[in-house]
Formats: sequence, C-alpha cells, structure tokens
Amino acid sequence: MDLASFITSVLTSFVIFVALVLVFTWLSRRPGNAPVYYPNLLLRGLDPWEGRGRGTRSPVGWIRDAISASEPDVVAASGVDAAVYLVFLSSVLSILVYSGIVLLPVLLPVAATGGALVVIPPNPNNSSQSTQDFSPIERLGVGNVPERSMRLWAFLLSVYWVSFVTYFVLWKSYKHVSNLRATARSTPDVKPEEFAVLVRDIPRPSPDETIKDFVDSYFRALHPNTFYRSMVVTDHTKADKIYQEIEGHKLKIARAEAVYANSKTESNPEGTKPTHRIGFLGLIGKKVDTIEYCSEQIKELLPKLEAEQKTTLHEKQQRAAIVVFNSRSAAASASQILHAQVYDKWTVMEAPEPCQILWPNLPRNLYERQIRQSVVYVIVFLIVFFYMVPIAAIAAVTTLENLEKKLPFLKVVVEQSAIKTVLEAYLPQIALIVFLALLPTLLMFLSKQEGIPSQSHAVRAASGKYFYFIVFNVFLCYTLGSTLFKSLTTILDHPSEIVDMLAKSLPGSATFFLTFVALKFFVGYGLELSRLVPLIIFHLKRKYLCKTEDDVKAAWAPGDLGYNTRVPNDMLIATVVLCYSVIAPLIIPFGVAYFALGWLIAKNQLRELRTNVATHAHEDHHGSDGLPDYHDRLHPLKKFNYAPVLVPLLPISIIFAYVCHMRFYPAFAKTPLEVVAQHDLKESPNMEAIYTSYIPPCLKPEKLEDLDAFEDAQSHTTSRAPSV
Amino acid sequence: MDLASFITSVLTSFVIFVALVLVFTWLSRRPGNAPVYYPNLLLRGLDPWEGRGRGTRSPVGWIRDAISASEPDVVAASGVDAAVYLVFLSSVLSILVYSGIVLLPVLLPVAATGGALVVIPPNPNNSSQSTQDFSPIERLGVGNVPERSMRLWAFLLSVYWVSFVTYFVLWKSYKHVSNLRATARSTPDVKPEEFAVLVRDIPRPSPDETIKDFVDSYFRALHPNTFYRSMVVTDHTKADKIYQEIEGHKLKIARAEAVYANSKTESNPEGTKPTHRIGFLGLIGKKVDTIEYCSEQIKELLPKLEAEQKTTLHEKQQRAAIVVFNSRSAAASASQILHAQVYDKWTVMEAPEPCQILWPNLPRNLYERQIRQSVVYVIVFLIVFFYMVPIAAIAAVTTLENLEKKLPFLKVVVEQSAIKTVLEAYLPQIALIVFLALLPTLLMFLSKQEGIPSQSHAVRAASGKYFYFIVFNVFLCYTLGSTLFKSLTTILDHPSEIVDMLAKSLPGSATFFLTFVALKFFVGYGLELSRLVPLIIFHLKRKYLCKTEDDVKAAWAPGDLGYNTRVPNDMLIATVVLCYSVIAPLIIPFGVAYFALGWLIAKNQLRELRTNVATHAHEDHHGSDGLPDYHDRLHPLKKFNYAPVLVPLLPISIIFAYVCHMRFYPAFAKTPLEVVAQHDLKESPNMEAIYTSYIPPCLKPEKLEDLDAFEDAQSHTTSRAPSV
Repeated sequence: MDLASFITSVLTSFVIFVALVLVFTWLSRRPGNAPVYYPNLLLRGLDPWEGRGRGTRSPVGWIRDAISASEPDVVAASGVDAAVYLVFLSSVLSILVYSGIVLLPVLLPVAATGGALVVIPPNPNNSSQSTQDFSPIERLGVGNVPERSMRLWAFLLSVYWVSFVTYFVLWKSYKHVSNLRATARSTPDVKPEEFAVLVRDIPRPSPDETIKDFVDSYFRALHPNTFYRSMVVTDHTKADKIYQEIEGHKLKIARAEAVYANSKTESNPEGTKPTHRIGFLGLIGKKVDTIEYCSEQIKELLPKLEAEQKTTLHEKQQRAAIVVFNSRSAAASASQILHAQVYDKWTVMEAPEPCQILWPNLPRNLYERQIRQSVVYVIVFLIVFFYMVPIAAIAAVTTLENLEKKLPFLKVVVEQSAIKTVLEAYLPQIALIVFLALLPTLLMFLSKQEGIPSQSHAVRAASGKYFYFIVFNVFLCYTLGSTLFKSLTTILDHPSEIVDMLAKSLPGSATFFLTFVALKFFVGYGLELSRLVPLIIFHLKRKYLCKTEDDVKAAWAPGDLGYNTRVPNDMLIATVVLCYSVIAPLIIPFGVAYFALGWLIAKNQLRELRTNVATHAHEDHHGSDGLPDYHDRLHPLKKFNYAPVLVPLLPISIIFAYVCHMRFYPAFAKTPLEVVAQHDLKESPNMEAIYTSYIPPCLKPEKLEDLDAFEDAQSHTTSRAPSV
Repeated sequence: MDLASFITSVLTSFVIFVALVLVFTWLSRRPGNAPVYYPNLLLRGLDPWEGRGRGTRSPVGWIRDAISASEPDVVAASGVDAAVYLVFLSSVLSILVYSGIVLLPVLLPVAATGGALVVIPPNPNNSSQSTQDFSPIERLGVGNVPERSMRLWAFLLSVYWVSFVTYFVLWKSYKHVSNLRATARSTPDVKPEEFAVLVRDIPRPSPDETIKDFVDSYFRALHPNTFYRSMVVTDHTKADKIYQEIEGHKLKIARAEAVYANSKTESNPEGTKPTHRIGFLGLIGKKVDTIEYCSEQIKELLPKLEAEQKTTLHEKQQRAAIVVFNSRSAAASASQILHAQVYDKWTVMEAPEPCQILWPNLPRNLYERQIRQSVVYVIVFLIVFFYMVPIAAIAAVTTLENLEKKLPFLKVVVEQSAIKTVLEAYLPQIALIVFLALLPTLLMFLSKQEGIPSQSHAVRAASGKYFYFIVFNVFLCYTLGSTLFKSLTTILDHPSEIVDMLAKSLPGSATFFLTFVALKFFVGYGLELSRLVPLIIFHLKRKYLCKTEDDVKAAWAPGDLGYNTRVPNDMLIATVVLCYSVIAPLIIPFGVAYFALGWLIAKNQLRELRTNVATHAHEDHHGSDGLPDYHDRLHPLKKFNYAPVLVPLLPISIIFAYVCHMRFYPAFAKTPLEVVAQHDLKESPNMEAIYTSYIPPCLKPEKLEDLDAFEDAQSHTTSRAPSV
C-alpha cells in the first residue's frame, strides 16, 4: 500500500466522521428526535433543553457534559458495569498516552533515518523474489532499521517502557474496579439477588415428599437462624404461553382504543370501532370487533391461567430452587459453602438478578451442564478455526498487486487510478468487517445452551468467545495469512527461511492495521455518535407501527451498549495497537484517538441511555493481562543479537498476571463478607418484596394478597429479618 | 535374566520370609517383647495374653484377628486415615483379583503358545544386533506373541477388562471413603479443629491497635453471633527454649531419682546421690548433685519463663491467628467464605489439629508462601530429574552381561555360577532400594519449607513428591534406561528405530519388575511383620539408656505407619503391577500376594499400634486415577493393526477421573455443611477447653486458672455456645 492510498483512506474516513458529527449536531437539536438522543432524561421526566441552553447541544457542549459527568453519576444512571467499562477504556487510553509520550519522539526519528528499506538488493540466488516498494509509512517502523543496528536498542527499551506502563496502569485500574464494585455492593439499596442463592442439583426426594418440602427442611436444618423462604423452580412454559396470550390481547385492546379515540373526528363523533380477522395472520376468517373480542378472550383465558398456575406450582416442580435468606451475609455465606457430601448434589451459587434469569437452564443438572459446555466449546473451537480459512484467503487475495498477478483480466479496471486507490484502501477492511457482523448472534445462542443461569453471564460468555474469535482470526490470521501468501514461492523453495520471512514481513502488516483502526475509529464512532440507524428506525416505527404512547416509548427505549461485541472489539483494537506500538509507533496516535473518543461517546451514551447488563467487565481486564505477552512473542523474531534482553519480560508478565488474578479475582467471582456485612444490622428489608420479585410474571397471582395461597412451590416464612 | 536366577531370587526371598515369620511367631510369644508387638493393648491397660489363649499368637491366630477386625475398630484405634489406607490396599487387591481371574487363565496359554521368541533371526542388515536368549518367564508375556497375530486381540480385550474393573472398584472405594469420612466427622466427640479457623495475611493494624484487637473487632463484626474468641499467633521461639530447658531439667531429676532409689541397696541404705558435671557434654566442669542442681535451675528459670511469656504475648504478636467459633457449622462456614475484598488479606482456612501445627509457618504471608512453593517445586523437579541419571546408569550397568562386556576383568569373579546367580538376582534391586532410602527426609524438609501450616499436610505433600519421584525414576527410567543402554549402538546407527526398539524391549523389563515386587513383598513385609529392627532398638535402649518407667514407655511408644514413604511405595507397586498385568500376566499373583499381605499386616499393626497422622490418604486415590492411563500409553507401542481399538480408553479414563474428582474431591478439601450441622444443636461443648488446646505448651501458665491473665494475644469471650 503506498502513501497516497493510505492518506486517501484516512482522509475519506475523516470526512465521513466530520459529516456524521455535523449530522448529529443538527439532528439532536430537533425536538422530534429527542427520544433517540436523550431517552434517559425523558425517562426521568426532564426536558432535555430546559435549564441548559441550546448551546450545550453543540459538539463542544456534549464533550463538556461527558467529561464533567462523575463516576457516581454513571453508576447511578447505568450501573457498575458501565463504570467498569469506562475504566477499561480510560486504562487503555492512559497506557497509550504514556507510551506515546516516550515512543513517538524517540522511535520515529530513529526509524525514519534507519534506511534499511531504501536499498534492498534483489537476492541474486532467487530470481522469483522481486524488489519491493516501501511506502513512507513503512519507513517509520522498525522494518526500516537495518539488522544488527544499534538503533534496535531504542526499540527494545521501548518494549520495556510499554510493558511497565501497562503493569502500572492495570494495577491501578484493578484497584479502582475492586473499590468500585465494593462501593456499589455496599449501598443500602435492597437488591433481591443479594439476599438469595440459587440451588441446583437437588436430589430426588422420597415419594411422599414434594421437592419444596425437601428444600425447606434441608435448608432450615442447615441455616436455622437465617433461612427465610424458598421458591422451587417450576416448568412454567405452558402458563407463560397463556400469560403471553393475555398480554397480547391487552396490548391489542389498548391499540384498538387508541385507534378508536383517534377516529372520533368532528365529522364522525362516534368513531369507527376497529375490527380484525381472527384467521391466519389476520388475513382470513371472521371479522370481529377487536376490543370486544379481546376482552372476551381475556375473560376466557384468565381462569385457564389460574388453573394452569395451580397445576404448575403443584405438579411441575423442578429440581432447582431460589432460597431467600434474611440477611446479605447469610446469603453470601450460603452461596460459598459446600453443602452436600458429594459435589453433584445441592450445588449452590449466588442468585442471578430476577429479570436476568434464564429459567430453562436452572433445572439442568451438573453433568448435563458439563456436557453441554464441552460440546459448545468444541463447536466454538471449530468456528474459530474454520472461519480463519476464508478470512485468510480474503486478506491475501485482496491485495491489488496479488489480484492483478493472479487475475490479469482485472488489470483494465484496477489500473484506473481512482478506482485503484479506493479499492486498495477499503477492500480488505470492508470484507473483514462484513464478515464479522454475522457472528455475535450465533455465539450468544451457543452461550445460552451451556446451561448458564443468567442472561448477563451468557453475555459475558459470548463476549469471551467473540474476543478469542477476533483475536485469532483478524489479528493473527491476517498477519500470518498475508505474509504466507506473499512469500509462498520462497517458502516452497527454502522452507527453513520461514522464520526470517515472518520477522521481515510482520512490520508490513502494520499499515493494514493502521488503516483498520482508523476506519473503525472514524466511521464506527461517527455512526455510533450520530445514532443514524436508531433514528431512522424510530421514525419509521413511529410513523407506521406505533398506535399508543406505550408503543412510542418502546420504539425509543434504549437497548444496552451491546457489550457482547463492543468489549471484544475494543479489546481487539487495544491488542493491535499495543502490539504494533513499538513496531510501528505511528499507530499510537490512532489508538489514542480511538479510545479517547470511545470513552467520550460511551460516557455520553451511558449518561443518557439506560443499560442493565450485569457485572461482566472484569473479564476484559483478563484479556488486557495477556497483552504484554504479545510483545515478547512478536519481538524476538527480529534478528538482533540483543534480543535475549527481552526474555525477562515473559516471566514478569506471567507473574504480574498471576498476582493480579490471585489478588483481585476471588472478589469478582464471590461476594466478600466484609463488603456485605456492614449494612446487615442497620436495616430490616422488606423480605416479602424480595421474595416476590423472584416469582416469574406468569405465575404471579392477579392480586398480590393471594400470594400465600400459592405456597406449594414456595415455603412459609420461618424466621424474621434481624430487627434493628 | 534366565529362569534359574529368577527362581533363585524368588525362592531365596521366600525362605527369608518364612524365617522372618517364624521369628515373629517365636519373639511375639515372649512376654518381655510385648511392648514392641502389642503397644496399643498395653496403652489401654490390657494384658495381651489375657482372654485370648496363647493359640491366637500363632501365625494363623493373628491372621484371624486381623481379618475379624471391623472398620469401626480400626477407626477407633488409629483414626480415619488408617481406615482410608486400608480401603486403598483392599481396592488395589480387588482390582488385581478381578483382573487375575480373567487374565491368568486366558493370557498365559495364549502367550505361551505364541512362539515369537523362539526364533528370532539376526537382522541381516545390522550385524551389531545379536540373537537374544529368552527365558520361559518372558515367553509367558506379550513379547512372545508374533506381530500382527490375531492372538493380540486377547491382550487388547484384557486391557479393557482391567480398565473397567479399575473404574468399578475405584468408584466403589470413593463412595466408601466419602461415607467413612462423613461418619467420622459427624461423631459427637468434640475435636478442637472443628470449631476453629486459621486466619493468615492479617493486614497491618493502625498504630494504636494491637493485632489481637484488630482480629477481634474484624471477626466480631463479620460473625456477630458465632464468634467466640481469637488467639493471635506469637513468635514464641524464646519462650519455647526456656520451656524445653525446664522440661529437660525435670527429666533429669526424674532419672536421677530413679538411679538414686536403685542405689539404695541393703549394703548402702542411704544410696548414692547421682552427680554430673555442668561443663561441655557433662565431661568437664564442676561436679554437682544432679537433683539439687536441677531443682535450683528450674526455680531460676520459672520466673524467666513467666516474664518471657508476658513479653511474647505482648510484643511478639504475629499476623496470623486461630479464631474459635461456638459451633461446628459456623467454623466450617467461616473457613470457606471469602472475607476480604482482596485475596491477599484475611485469608481463612480450616484450622489444623492443635498438636499438628507448624508454628513458624503460620505467619508467612501469601506471597512468601507462593514463592516458597515455587522454589520448592523447582528443587523437587531437579531432584526427580537428576536422580534419574545415576539410577539409569546403575540399571543399565548392573546387568551382568553388560558388566562383563564393558569390564572384562570381572569375568573371573562373575563366571562362578553361585556368585553369578546371586548377583544377577539381587544386584540391581538392592542398588535401587538403598538409593531410595535416602530421600524421604529431604522431601519432608522441603515440604515443611513450603509454608504448609500443619504437620499432616506436610506429610501429604512429601508423600506426593515421593510418589512422583519413584514413578519417574524407578518405573519409567528403569524401563527406558535399560532399553536404551542395551540398544545404544543400534540407535546411534538408526535413530528412527527408537520406537520399534521401545515396543520390543518393554516386555523385557517385566522380569525385572517381577523380581522387584517379589523382593519388596517377601523381605519388606517379613521385616515389617517381625518388627526385628524396632525390637533390637527397644532392647538396646531398655538395657543402656532407660532409667525410669517413662523412658521405657518412650522406647516402645509406636510411631506412625510412615505414610510419607509407605503410601507412595504401595502406589508404585500398584502402578507397576497394573501396567504389566496385561504385558506379563505372571506379575498379577505377586501383586495379589503383596497387597493381600500388606492389607493383613497393616490391619494387624493399625489395630495394635497407635498412629495419629491426620487425613491425607485421599490423595492416594488420585494417583490410582491415573493408572488406567498407563495402559493407553504403553500399549499402542506394540505393533498391531488393531491398536486403535484402545484409543477410546484414553478419553474414558480422563472422563472417569474428571467425574470422580468433581464429585468427591470438594468434600475431601472442605467440610460439607450437612455433615457438621447435625450435632450443633444437640450439645454445648466446653469452649474453654477447645480454646486452651490451641495454646502452645510453652505459653501455658502453670495453673490454668491464670489463663485470663494472659489475655493480650487472646480475646475475651463475646458470645456463648448455643445452649440446648
């Protein structure tokens, strides 16, 4: 890739970005778009323009807003994970800034004057190897330094600098996150999941005992002073179906009433009652008055639901339960203690948030979970491995020189300079990005099949899989794939030269990743910021689908940040930038821009958008731990007599990762007693409300007072919460 | 090795064994030897001959006694570990018996008529390979079956049979042990370690607070209802030194008084007061009256001790503590819960038995423990690896043919048939056994350096290291070493033939191990049973050293079974026998004999001897888990087209080991709540006694009522044990 196409690429990206920012500024000032840009303010009943002045809506305005938002604000608006995600972004940013301050002024001059890439004589013994052209960008990397030159010392010491900066920043971030989580956990707000544990693998009870009695007597015996009540998980698929049907009818009535009210114009004061057909998709069958028909249906379904609720609670008890305790410490303790003598019985764990529970996964037993997990891992391994093949092919073929060489008839098209420049700049990157868009849904589905009990854990699992996928496929395979293809003939002749080849060609991939980061940065964040896609969808929905106020609200209700792909993508960029930071220091400014803007936008969105994905960001740091290692693996490839100087970094990195893991991870996985114990004596929570929040909506009786009637899968209170 | 020397070896061993049994029968009938043979009966105040008749002391008699002893008897006499050890022996025995029932009648005829070893034509391309002689023993193994013969099917199916027998027996043993431990744990006897936890990595308290206050306030806050009292670990080396000095003087007084009493004969009714010199080793210096001098010394030392006790408790508090709870469940819970937000503070674990505590290891912090462990592992790795070199050399050189070849001047000696036979039979085995005797002490020392808090855990750790050592060195290296040496020249010429060579030579090592097992069995157990060495030592001590009754008691006080070498040795034999069971089925009867007799002798000793090494035998089964794997690794070496038939055994073995580990191990490592909870409400233990048992002897005040005066490192009672 020559300088022209690189500059074209970056410039085009930048123009698109500026355009998108302008679009955002313009669109966000229009009151009709407010729900898309300021949903959280609306949810809290505030007018986004009130008390701020229109000036704050300018690009400068929102940047000021984003920077001034404090961490507690973010936690309050969007939860701990959002805050942890911001810490992750700002950590990478700090690492890059500290690295850049030293690396850019030192390495760029050293590399630029190295001169190794100016003269490369064609190998006289091997006529197939042609003289290569090198762009000015490549001349700014380590590739331009001659072998065995003393200039390489600068690069070696840079690796140490980057590594120690990484250790320092990561250690501080770990401490920060650890405190953040502890602070969030020790707030006095009552969260139901803090008082409950999930019990699985309940043994088969004796025939004259229900599972519920069995659970009750077991936990009452083991936790006589702290056991509050238990709720056995039931198979409520059928009840849920009826419940959803009723809800559907209710929605239809609400919509029909809105349509009916709108139809009452002056010319037609009675209005027209909406009707629909009851056959297939509302297209065939008898025409009925919607409101009347649906009300009748609801009346018919309600007793059915109640009957089904009773049957479910009586007869469809499953071998899993939510056990509620009367204090946070008791629940935290119970979730960490081994209960039964064999591990495949009475396994306990912290209860998921009520709204996050994946009910079908709860009753799966230990062995089923293990088998499902193994099968899913094998499938994911296959996906990771076989996706590599087409990606490597694309990366190798889409270099225009290669295309021309292999397919000479394309020459007519690609020789035209304008087309050539655009194609060269974007073709490989776009192919890659499109390819990657297909995967997250599949990984999410697979993660749910593992038997994970909560949605948020499934997101975390999917995110981990996605990270391995993109690191392996995008990062490693592009680098190696293009290298191998370029030099295929040489390798076939001299297999032993492969290591030399890798060392020589690695710096060449730097330009690709430079462009990749720039594209991700300008276009990706531009779209993100302008929210063009959600805006269009919102307006379409509002025009054609929404009948009631609730419908409109649902149309602009913000989703989460999309952690399952967002975090791995950021991790990939971080990995790429850190790896190439020494090889091609020019990548650092792009990385800094990416994470700086990413941090601003995420903060802006998190302040404005609601997200309720639970804790998972701590796994991100695990990935970051691995980063320093890459340096060690990539660098010694460069021929240099002093390369052993880098060897100590490998054990240091491993020890650092081990110590961090040992010190901080237990508290990420389990609730430390000292964090939850402090509020236990000060308050007496509403245990009934905690308990009720775990009843699935389809099993909730219409009136809450009837709750005690549904006691078959639920146990009576046996002890009170400690009073003040 | 030819048939004659093998038979000589086995016969000699057998004669020695019979002799030792006869010696045992004769010696154990003599009343003077009773303390050596029946110490437990004496300890319990019983006369070993009373109510039994002398008939029971015949060989048949003690076998009947040993068999009739029930498991609860063993647990009562020697603890759970002893019982677990017996289960281990009987499990291996069952595996071998079930295997032998099928393998011996099937494989021996198949192998004997195979005929591959009768005619081996010398390789015409390789003149250095000579025609080998094969003994009838080798003809009874798989080595005698021709390549690609259908007879090999019998051997393949045998591998399956042995594997499934192993799974079946191991699964039953796991269940048995699991129940055994649960039963033992849920007895109502009050054991102090069940009420306490060990706390380490206590953070530095604020300057105006002692560590003791810090621990108290922390645990009182987190466990307000169950915390009883804490005892901070102190550095009591100095106090202990004074205490030992006082005890030494007390012992001297007791001895001197006994000597004095004996000296009062009729001719000298006053007796002679014993004297000694106070200089170096009692050889120089002033002569003093022992009783007077020692009494004075004690009088001088006592106030010193008291002062040192106070200083120790005040000023030498260390950052570790024993925290006592008022119920078993509370202690079990506390030991399993994460307390602090970072893992390197306030780490908790189950408390060791008071008498097992290794005090110097308690205050070591997490990072120190990790570093020590890593260093010890590296050292052990080096030991395992470099001990191999001399052993391999010995195994290779001590084959007489080799010796003769390499050192022709020996020919004169070894050509004499009698010497030759004996040397051939025993030389390699004796070299090996002597070699192995040097190691256990070193491994025990290293294990203690790891920072393990209790003696019994250190024994377990040493035992594990020893097992890896002997498996690697004895089993693998002998097999490979002798093979390599034998064929060194061939390998140098044709390096690619090494796999073929291994496959061909492996069956050859069978004879060595056959002899090895026989020797271990006859001579080892003969010595064990006859207790000749302890008997001699006892009589020597009684004659020359013992002055008082207590001295005599100390002389015959039985030690433990020596688990740290005994268990790994048994494991080695089990590994060897199981590995060769299919290759050379003749080894099975020897294995059966070894474990049958081992079980009898262990039961006999455990019934009679007291052992108080705590729980560790569950690690043994871990090793056994690995056994089926060996089959998979060794067998495919044999050239046979159907060998892939064995491939499924590898995953099956891994899955079996994984399932066993998952199901049973958590309860071996942690105390399950359901096991300890049942007695908590029924009793109110003597908390003061539990607490006191953790005070090291040198810090115990002379009168126990003074206990509360020493409250500096010990906290006041804050809560009562639950009353009935």
